[in-house]
Amino acid sequence: MIFRQLFDADSSTFTYLIADPSTGKAALIDPVLEKVERDLQFVHELGLSLSHVLETHIHADHVTAAGVLRQRTGCTVVVGELGAESADRHVRHGDELRVGQLLIHVLATPGHTDDSLSYLVDDRVFTGDALLVRGTGRTDFQNGDPSQLYDSITRVLFALPDDTRVYPAHDYQGRTMSTIGEERQHNPRVAGKDRGAFIELMNGLELGLPKRIDVAVPANRSLGMVVPSGG
Amino acid sequence: MIFRQLFDADSSTFTYLIADPSTGKAALIDPVLEKVERDLQFVHELGLSLSHVLETHIHADHVTAAGVLRQRTGCTVVVGELGAESADRHVRHGDELRVGQLLIHVLATPGHTDDSLSYLVDDRVFTGDALLVRGTGRTDFQNGDPSQLYDSITRVLFALPDDTRVYPAHDYQGRTMSTIGEERQHNPRVAGKDRGAFIELMNGLELGLPKRIDVAVPANRSLGMVVPSGG
Repeated sequence: MIFRQLFDADSSTFTYLIADPSTGKAALIDPVLEKVERDLQFVHELGLSLSHVLETHIHADHVTAAGVLRQRTGCTVVVGELGAESADRHVRHGDELRVGQLLIHVLATPGHTDDSLSYLVDDRVFTGDALLVRGTGRTDFQNGDPSQLYDSITRVLFALPDDTRVYPAHDYQGRTMSTIGEERQHNPRVAGKDRGAFIELMNGLELGLPKRIDVAVPANRSLGMVVPSGG
Repeated sequence: MIFRQLFDADSSTFTYLIADPSTGKAALIDPVLEKVERDLQFVHELGLSLSHVLETHIHADHVTAAGVLRQRTGCTVVVGELGAESADRHVRHGDELRVGQLLIHVLATPGHTDDSLSYLVDDRVFTGDALLVRGTGRTDFQNGDPSQLYDSITRVLFALPDDTRVYPAHDYQGRTMSTIGEERQHNPRVAGKDRGAFIELMNGLELGLPKRIDVAVPANRSLGMVVPSGG
């Protein structure tokens, strides 16, 4: 499997390029609008063709490149059942996707938002904002729900083998990956915490809203094709 | 091999943690002073002990954590022959290092600076500022020499197998790695360029000096233990 981790420093967002070397088919997970040229350059120089964009959820902190990439390449845009209506495919827990010979398992991991998915490919899981390195996504907007997130992390993601590599949608401290075993043991939000303690912690975070939420959420409902002014 | 890529967003510097799972011995390549706690937390939580810090060169854009890490852990600090005098080991082209069972080959890759090294571990090469993703280090200070850098890249690094994974000391566009084959084919500074064209390109870059060069270079000559005021 061809694999590249890419980073948008403005929003601290990770985008992932995964591809099947035997067919050259590629997918981008959570691409960022401002990074379209960089990402397409990689696809081109690696001799790949973009067949899919996979969104983990409707993002509040950056505008997706999904719509532009579909326009430029004809790729299929995949989102959750509650994701952008104009996507090509709406998937749910247990669904499978093929990118060339790569088999991608869809896991529903709501709680950060109600439409949040994770994607499992071999021993890598792309967790969006459900599970971060030593952290989790917040749960205070877009129908977030700490009780649901607790289940998504402890029952769905922590059910994966310990050596599964965790690739999140963000990191703010320069960490790039983790493993399920590590997070089970060391994630300060969930390790050794029961549901009640997690909910209390999440409800007490008192975070400011993401700077671009008023632009990003509506823009992402159209896959980034209509960006409100200010964005 | 345990492997982690870490990033310092302030200086766009990559630090690498490599470790031998059988002995738990770990090395940090190009650690950054401000990230000591993050890096030691990883070493600790992964159940490792830090045996080495490896510097690719005397950096001009950030202050190394090597001295502090030696003080905190007793690790061995490895630099090139022209690197910081107070290091524990000064290595040159062809030398080998052991971190537990990991075998590390030292490659002299001068040109960005006169003391620049790369470290080859299995199919990964840590290239410092010699070879970057679709770029190279600059050659206009610290005894940089474009002709030397041309040889380091085309004769030393490009002599490695095409599928060798390239991990640079920096990236400014959110790219995290490359391969030797990719860089041989697509690096705009060297692909299809002869020595004369490369030297002309490098001598014509007209870059401003790194913001912190007056602080970083003298600080790094003491492995970060004496940081001039302003740093």
